[in-house]
Amino acid sequence: MPTLRELAELVGGTVVGDADLSILRVASIAEAQAGEITFIANPKYLSLLQQTRASAVIAAPGAEAPHLSLLVCRNPYLAFAKILTFLQVRRPSPQGVMAGACVHPSASLGEGITVHPGCVVGENVTIGTGTILYPGVIVYADVVIGEECTLHAGVIVREGCRIGNRVILQPSAVIGADGFGFAPDGSRYYKIPQVGIVEIEDDVEIGASSCIDRAALGVTRIRRGVKIDNLVQIGHNVVVGEDTVIVAQVGIAGSTEIGRHCTFGGQAGTIGHIKIGDNVMVGGQSGVTGSVGPNQVLSGTPVMPHREWLKASMSFARLPELRKDVTRMKRQLAELEMLIKER
Amino acid sequence: MPTLRELAELVGGTVVGDADLSILRVASIAEAQAGEITFIANPKYLSLLQQTRASAVIAAPGAEAPHLSLLVCRNPYLAFAKILTFLQVRRPSPQGVMAGACVHPSASLGEGITVHPGCVVGENVTIGTGTILYPGVIVYADVVIGEECTLHAGVIVREGCRIGNRVILQPSAVIGADGFGFAPDGSRYYKIPQVGIVEIEDDVEIGASSCIDRAALGVTRIRRGVKIDNLVQIGHNVVVGEDTVIVAQVGIAGSTEIGRHCTFGGQAGTIGHIKIGDNVMVGGQSGVTGSVGPNQVLSGTPVMPHREWLKASMSFARLPELRKDVTRMKRQLAELEMLIKER
Amino acid sequence: MPTLRELAELVGGTVVGDADLSILRVASIAEAQAGEITFIANPKYLSLLQQTRASAVIAAPGAEAPHLSLLVCRNPYLAFAKILTFLQVRRPSPQGVMAGACVHPSASLGEGITVHPGCVVGENVTIGTGTILYPGVIVYADVVIGEECTLHAGVIVREGCRIGNRVILQPSAVIGADGFGFAPDGSRYYKIPQVGIVEIEDDVEIGASSCIDRAALGVTRIRRGVKIDNLVQIGHNVVVGEDTVIVAQVGIAGSTEIGRHCTFGGQAGTIGHIKIGDNVMVGGQSGVTGSVGPNQVLSGTPVMPHREWLKASMSFARLPELRKDVTRMKRQLAELEMLIKER
Repeated sequence: MPTLRELAELVGGTVVGDADLSILRVASIAEAQAGEITFIANPKYLSLLQQTRASAVIAAPGAEAPHLSLLVCRNPYLAFAKILTFLQVRRPSPQGVMAGACVHPSASLGEGITVHPGCVVGENVTIGTGTILYPGVIVYADVVIGEECTLHAGVIVREGCRIGNRVILQPSAVIGADGFGFAPDGSRYYKIPQVGIVEIEDDVEIGASSCIDRAALGVTRIRRGVKIDNLVQIGHNVVVGEDTVIVAQVGIAGSTEIGRHCTFGGQAGTIGHIKIGDNVMVGGQSGVTGSVGPNQVLSGTPVMPHREWLKASMSFARLPELRKDVTRMKRQLAELEMLIKER
Repeated sequence: MPTLRELAELVGGTVVGDADLSILRVASIAEAQAGEITFIANPKYLSLLQQTRASAVIAAPGAEAPHLSLLVCRNPYLAFAKILTFLQVRRPSPQGVMAGACVHPSASLGEGITVHPGCVVGENVTIGTGTILYPGVIVYADVVIGEECTLHAGVIVREGCRIGNRVILQPSAVIGADGFGFAPDGSRYYKIPQVGIVEIEDDVEIGASSCIDRAALGVTRIRRGVKIDNLVQIGHNVVVGEDTVIVAQVGIAGSTEIGRHCTFGGQAGTIGHIKIGDNVMVGGQSGVTGSVGPNQVLSGTPVMPHREWLKASMSFARLPELRKDVTRMKRQLAELEMLIKER
Repeated sequence: MPTLRELAELVGGTVVGDADLSILRVASIAEAQAGEITFIANPKYLSLLQQTRASAVIAAPGAEAPHLSLLVCRNPYLAFAKILTFLQVRRPSPQGVMAGACVHPSASLGEGITVHPGCVVGENVTIGTGTILYPGVIVYADVVIGEECTLHAGVIVREGCRIGNRVILQPSAVIGADGFGFAPDGSRYYKIPQVGIVEIEDDVEIGASSCIDRAALGVTRIRRGVKIDNLVQIGHNVVVGEDTVIVAQVGIAGSTEIGRHCTFGGQAGTIGHIKIGDNVMVGGQSGVTGSVGPNQVLSGTPVMPHREWLKASMSFARLPELRKDVTRMKRQLAELEMLIKER
């Protein structure tokens, strides 16, 4: 069991209190017990420290809790994440290709991999060192998967797609389904073959049952560090820029290009064939119906600056009242006009 | 084949007409044939009874249909559900662990279970009496599943999650994927390990491809009797209260607590870290952006009382007209002011 | 390798330039190389032809590109789709029931089928000639699947459902999960058994992780030629008319009937038990809350004519300004009234 001193070294923090304390695990303020460390990411919860039974707390400079040992650091939330990883996350030891998995003999498998029962790995697939395929993962032919990836149960990666290193795919994520493209042929539709691929760069995480469609021609690209939540739809030929965060149930329509370090709130959507600049935040349930420049906070359908949307939304609730006002004023005006003309 | 009298006893109703009639099955008013029973849940459809070929009908007191036998009861819709279950639902006879299933030897299996081909059941899993795992269900290590549950094909339950009794999971539901949590580390994001679990209590049903994320720390909890439709997203550390109903494509963000007996219309969403009281109805596509008290009907984004939303929405359509009115009135006012000052 | 002349014959077009040119594949304007053909679907991109390295281009009559050979035809987009299919799509050669698939002996299998490893096919299932089941497809008992269908990995088809010919189901599509039906029984809910089926007619495509629920009684019907994108929810007893297009994340609630040749934009939704006429276009994120007649373009929640919605949305952004105007005018009016009465 590591000491509080060792954890402080891990995250570049300092100890106020008993640096030799052994720390078993991380727990929430309410549930922590003796031997456990908790954290305060938001100073407004500092008063909760009075009641916690934790032995130590990760906190920002300035926190006071005389009955507890403190691990003080500038970014307690990040320190919490790092300590939690250090204490409670163990990558399972590699099992190789397990009985009940079906791997094509032409597949190229790195060292230290695990392929669980129920997986099917197609022709000419490459799987990098240390990658884990949980049960029921299906990998079509000619896919390349990098090192230290985690593909959870039910993940499907279709033909020819490429996945970088340290990528995490949550259960039932679908990579490389056909994009949605049809050419009208009179009243019917003719399917446009989707012969492109999906390329997912390093350190991306994609949520459960999210779908990243393959390009019609070319590549649908999810750049380094992108984090995508559950049930998200990414259309064909979309590009998502580095470190962009996309919350659950968002839909990005085909050929749209999203910049770096953007954030999409849950259930937001964009039309296709537009560009969204870097550092754009789009509020939940918003709809982006045209290209937008960088460094903006937007909300509404169609989107507008978030502050304006807040004001407009407040006014929306009072619309019936406003209409009554206007109707009454019309009458008043007419009466006044009459009065004046009569004189 | 049961008689109409037996069905009336089953649901606590009374027969008007031929109580000895044998009833084969339930069918809709339009499609029912001789030997079949239909139902009228809404009195406004009573006239449709003239044309049905059914032999009997489940109806509320007061219904008249001289050519049919009536099963009269106070809640015809509930009686319909019970009779349909009685006549047409048979739980398949247990098959044990079938060939092509992969069950870890440490798993504890109750009596009368069925584990279909293509299932993978991990270490230290417990499965209760009478539970059925349809083909391709994946259960990670340390999961506990109760009695008489039905896990349809493609369901995934990740490590350590707990499922009560009589729970129904529709195909491809994902229980216990990682919650969406990342700590900013400069411009990049550091994954916060999601070491909590999901706990699903008795008599819950969860729809196809819905995702219930595991807690970061602690438990994401779906309480007794909750009914969740397809493609719903429940974030980490959410609590959903007893008998709450969540329609398709709703998203509940992390750490939000929902009361008992609420209803969320399709595609509605909530932000995280809020509380929603008991008996709250949220309209389809609405967005709940702050905590709300009990016993309310809400709509819109952000939500407001449903009646106000209806009025505001009607006014919305007339906004351009309203703006024209205001522009014209401005001019009129200016003219009047001029006129008065001139005098 | 086919010549440009052969491709022109395939699509009913004419060649301007070197008809004997051999064409290897289709590529986008930006990426095409010598030996490749590209296309211009939209005349506004004609200037891009200056820079392309393609050897030939599919274009509408009137296009000029002296350095390229032209394949001129009235519908270049359709021609592109047909040529792409001709050049780059090969249906894999049939493999029969592969090792690692689990097919019930009572199943009836057509000629030239492929059932990949990890598939489970239940009792009394019928699979037509030339149909492919990719790995991990689960087909419950009594399902009928037509000819030349493609069921991608992870697709689930529940008991008794019927699928026509040339149907494409993208990965993890769920056909025939229980509809969402519960009868209130005091504060609790009693499950209404969903004993109907789903029927999918010829030439339908359904996207990844989309869910088509089985009927309570009767049939949920997806008619010939319907195209459904990813993560779409179709409720029980819905009917979707021929050649209707439904974009990603749309939700259609139970018992709603949609006409022919409609289009639903992404994330749109409808309530249940309504009728939507033929040739209706519903904008993205819109909400249809009542029946609507044919031949309309609608947007908003609740929907209104699209043009009106555009105007109302523009006015919405200016609502705060409008309220200020009205407040100011109220004061002016009061002052004027005072002034007049004083005289």
